Amino acid sequence: MNKKVTAAFIIIGNEILSGRTKDQNLNFLATSLNEMGIGLIEVRVVRDIEQEIINAVNELRTKYNYVFTSGGIGPTHDDITAMAIAKAFNTELICDRKARKLLEEHYGSKLNEARLKMAYIPKNSTLLNNPVSSAPGFKTGNVFVMAGVPKIMQSMFLASKEHLETGQKTHSSSISAFIAEGDIALELNKVQNQYDSVEIGSYPFIKDGKLGTSLVFRSTDKSQVRESLKQIKSYLEKIQTTIEKEV
Amino acid sequence: MNKKVTAAFIIIGNEILSGRTKDQNLNFLATSLNEMGIGLIEVRVVRDIEQEIINAVNELRTKYNYVFTSGGIGPTHDDITAMAIAKAFNTELICDRKARKLLEEHYGSKLNEARLKMAYIPKNSTLLNNPVSSAPGFKTGNVFVMAGVPKIMQSMFLASKEHLETGQKTHSSSISAFIAEGDIALELNKVQNQYDSVEIGSYPFIKDGKLGTSLVFRSTDKSQVRESLKQIKSYLEKIQTTIEKEV
Repeated sequence: MNKKVTAAFIIIGNEILSGRTKDQNLNFLATSLNEMGIGLIEVRVVRDIEQEIINAVNELRTKYNYVFTSGGIGPTHDDITAMAIAKAFNTELICDRKARKLLEEHYGSKLNEARLKMAYIPKNSTLLNNPVSSAPGFKTGNVFVMAGVPKIMQSMFLASKEHLETGQKTHSSSISAFIAEGDIALELNKVQNQYDSVEIGSYPFIKDGKLGTSLVFRSTDKSQVRESLKQIKSYLEKIQTTIEKEV
Repeated sequence: MNKKVTAAFIIIGNEILSGRTKDQNLNFLATSLNEMGIGLIEVRVVRDIEQEIINAVNELRTKYNYVFTSGGIGPTHDDITAMAIAKAFNTELICDRKARKLLEEHYGSKLNEARLKMAYIPKNSTLLNNPVSSAPGFKTGNVFVMAGVPKIMQSMFLASKEHLETGQKTHSSSISAFIAEGDIALELNKVQNQYDSVEIGSYPFIKDGKLGTSLVFRSTDKSQVRESLKQIKSYLEKIQTTIEKEV
């Protein structure tokens, strides 16, 4: 099991681009995919404009194993994601019987024309059930179409999981110390050259008014993570740096 | 003054894609640009991989008036943005005298080889000063290269402002009411068709256990925003919906 599984995420929504709404889905998806050994390689935020959604979906679905989208699958006029996905796959929207039944059960006599729109999904799609609000997301090919409301998006992601192949898990450790990035950079460079299977990230922080750096070691090879971190730790101890934490 | 000015934002950083770090810059930039009448049209998050940065920069800088980037301009081995920008513009990195002076003044005898890297910027760039940590961002053509640390990014954006042409301001009003999206959708659709210069967004919310919808009206034509909102408001009052707030 040392397969690379990759994904992209398309956030659909004018409200994110205008600053009205803060996205809360990216970090959830990034963390969840990472735990499954699926690498999130690219994220895009695009407007509620059909052609822009089509372009992003078609570019990314051929590049990565999976594409996730959030936003634009509600009952209002600005919800155009389902139609855009159908066009991206060169297919049509059909009224899905199971989706319609879910909506009928949930809304009863309140199921009007606007809400019924949520039962229309691209032909040959699979529903991603959503116990929170009943209107389902769906999977078309390798594209997983989810709602923008975080709680609903998360429940649709849960429903997506059974369709996802997991990849080789990335192991991650980190050490944070009260040293400026510029004072550890050269040593870090040496360690990076020595352990080329390890991706070493360096992130400055300020805590209690003191400047520090968090060093993150990531690799599918756990022993390489451990050894590269150990080497930096020895160096930090040698130059008598205060280590803040090691995770 | 009814010019459309557009922008894209490229967030550079493995730490965002792995879920380790939550992005805090998108919402700041979206809000700031929106206030200046500059439309943020597209956002991408890409890895710390040179070719991926080059591709995103070259695609977006021809499509939009401005491109902003965040991340990857520090002193460590994983800071590769300056080199990627130089290659995207088919030019070379040079040691900028002003940037070097700023670093000398700030670091004194602690200015080592790693920190000096931050004085290297693409030929023919303009510095974006940063009083927080002294190492400057820079502007190459229509691309504004900023740090990833939010406080530093914000100070570099402030320095970018004098280089930005502002566009026609988008006016925005919103009304929130305790009505489900599906119950307002058809009326909303009518209003949208009547006011086609207004972009109407519909966003569900839950407050005190009650379901509601926020309707956002955006247009460069203030009177159209006012009138379309007024029409929806009358409808909401007619069907005796509780209005939660109007902004």
